[in-house]
Amino acid sequence: MAAAESDKRFALIQENLAEVLNGEIIKKILDEGQHPKIYWGTATTGRPHCGYFVPAIKIAQFLAAGCDVTILLADIHGFLDNLKAPLELVMHRAEFYRHIITAMLQSVGVSTEKLRVVLGSSYQKSPEYVMDVYKMASLISEHDAKKAGAEVVKQTDNAPMSGLLYPILQVLDEQYLDCDAQFGGMDQRKLFTAAKEWLPKLGYRERAHLLNPMVPGLHGGKMSSSDPDSKIDLLDSADTVAKKIRKAHAAPQIVEENGLLAFIEFVLLPAARLRGSGEFRVDRERDGLEPLVYTEIEKIREDYKNDVLTPQLIKPAVSRELSALLAPIQEAFQSSKEWQEIAEKAYPPPPKKEKKVKNKGTRHPGAPKDQAETQEKELPIRPNEETPN
Amino acid sequence: MAAAESDKRFALIQENLAEVLNGEIIKKILDEGQHPKIYWGTATTGRPHCGYFVPAIKIAQFLAAGCDVTILLADIHGFLDNLKAPLELVMHRAEFYRHIITAMLQSVGVSTEKLRVVLGSSYQKSPEYVMDVYKMASLISEHDAKKAGAEVVKQTDNAPMSGLLYPILQVLDEQYLDCDAQFGGMDQRKLFTAAKEWLPKLGYRERAHLLNPMVPGLHGGKMSSSDPDSKIDLLDSADTVAKKIRKAHAAPQIVEENGLLAFIEFVLLPAARLRGSGEFRVDRERDGLEPLVYTEIEKIREDYKNDVLTPQLIKPAVSRELSALLAPIQEAFQSSKEWQEIAEKAYPPPPKKEKKVKNKGTRHPGAPKDQAETQEKELPIRPNEETPN
Repeated sequence: MAAAESDKRFALIQENLAEVLNGEIIKKILDEGQHPKIYWGTATTGRPHCGYFVPAIKIAQFLAAGCDVTILLADIHGFLDNLKAPLELVMHRAEFYRHIITAMLQSVGVSTEKLRVVLGSSYQKSPEYVMDVYKMASLISEHDAKKAGAEVVKQTDNAPMSGLLYPILQVLDEQYLDCDAQFGGMDQRKLFTAAKEWLPKLGYRERAHLLNPMVPGLHGGKMSSSDPDSKIDLLDSADTVAKKIRKAHAAPQIVEENGLLAFIEFVLLPAARLRGSGEFRVDRERDGLEPLVYTEIEKIREDYKNDVLTPQLIKPAVSRELSALLAPIQEAFQSSKEWQEIAEKAYPPPPKKEKKVKNKGTRHPGAPKDQAETQEKELPIRPNEETPN
Repeated sequence: MAAAESDKRFALIQENLAEVLNGEIIKKILDEGQHPKIYWGTATTGRPHCGYFVPAIKIAQFLAAGCDVTILLADIHGFLDNLKAPLELVMHRAEFYRHIITAMLQSVGVSTEKLRVVLGSSYQKSPEYVMDVYKMASLISEHDAKKAGAEVVKQTDNAPMSGLLYPILQVLDEQYLDCDAQFGGMDQRKLFTAAKEWLPKLGYRERAHLLNPMVPGLHGGKMSSSDPDSKIDLLDSADTVAKKIRKAHAAPQIVEENGLLAFIEFVLLPAARLRGSGEFRVDRERDGLEPLVYTEIEKIREDYKNDVLTPQLIKPAVSRELSALLAPIQEAFQSSKEWQEIAEKAYPPPPKKEKKVKNKGTRHPGAPKDQAETQEKELPIRPNEETPN
């Protein structure tokens, strides 16, 4: 029974992953009936969009499988990414990330009790950490640092030094966040294999690594947060979602690099399973037909190839399911004045518009005048802070 | 009068230097009758030898010219240079450096009241410093970091990452040690010009830079502390000094790359001037001739070229003057049990010999048994520590 339970948990942890390195580290902890500690890091820069559901669903599965999950909000990295933005702005963004990621996980019905959200700045400036950065820098060759960051750092001769420094930080984070495994996309693979080699050099233990495939965005290819039309904001209304999905590129019968099918496979189906039904339903009322109900991506792919499932049919279904995922997030946002205030401060409207309209109160319906004063308070950096349940 | 005084101080600061960058920064402070703050850094690794007199004499001149001098004992760098040595050993070495450098300055008769000795570890792990390291790393290109360290860091593809990190640290040290100028050898030039460019990027002011020429060692070429016969230890007896100087390579009539003449020019003559006489005297008793008395290196060079001043004549004179410089250092060492204990701990005899002789007490006459216990106490890292006067 215990072995079966362990296998079941391990299967959920590995579901949909492209690769697992040193999975035996995780399996051993599961076999002992314990809770593997998994960490995922994200730099707090651009506003999280629907593409964040891909890692979020995996994190939800880790939580559902009884793992302790740590989300690292890499605020220092976010700050350094664009030194023109003041540190305060980055801290507001970190706080925004904390709210929205927690809400994303809750929207698929998992408990976030075992979720810990940590700010990078809470330990990446500590003397112990820094001494380890110096030590690692003296043990790792320039060549190896460059190789480790090859897929996540721009590789030009003019690239900033930080690109060579970050791999060292990310590897040390595994130790300082006290995790058993790090989770990330396949673009992190070289960094993860570097971590396996580098940590033992400082006498630290090797970690497992869980790799998500690179999932094409809803518009085909990687979703970009810099093109506003190519991404769906997590606070977009159902109408906006439907409009954006209608514009999504999806060639009939082509399943490769199909962002809609990928979103169903890596987000909607797993989310449905986490919430119980496990179904993806496609209405065909307009054609006077019974709905199509799927529980397996293979069947969806087959029907799509055969044009039983056309882009015209699939798009409204994806819009409906995505909006259903977004609804509780938006509800949480609407009911939290704190979060609304943070959103204003984290992603203020572009300054150009500010010049035209002096009366801020009318421009920001979400931030009534009586809240203006409380917006000034600074967000403290707290070590190993837990998210509110 | 004030202007003349300022000119005189500036002349002493610049004496024998190969180059001064942004000297106007120093001149302005002197014109205001104030004390320029100058910093010199050294990694605490190998045991300081007589070659250290070259920077030490300049530091003595800075002090004599009414500058506030900070010596950075780069213990973290020393530690990282050889990770096999425990941190404790490096801290003992830093303490050894503190003692011997202070004694070297006192041996030429300057007051060390305005001398401050700072351990790198006292601030290079602080959150403010580290944040600036991260910031600088994101503003400086890999190419520029490599260029800055080109002459002080090994430039292979297999070189450790620390080689690219150290230039950033050394540049920030100017700000964190609150200096007006950094002093170093010509091998530091690229690093110094980098500092001029990099500090303003973080909003910090540009510093002046004082560059010493690269001085050939007593045996010709740079003195190496790894070849025991090529260097003269600061605690070597007068006999040992004489023996080593006798072996020094010095071709008659050749003044270029002549380590003996360089030592006279950059150490013995300036030391004599600091102590008052300003003379370098060469005895010729054996030949029944009057001694040669010099106050100018040009005259010494001329006589050497003409073989009036032969290697046979100059060697005993250099030995005598060097031993005279070493005498007060060795006296200070003999009268300080603390320093003797530190010497034992900082540079313990090679472990091979330890296996043969178990009784430490007889092997280390400087460390009687009753001191063994006190040797265990750890040396604390203290911020901005002053040397004892």
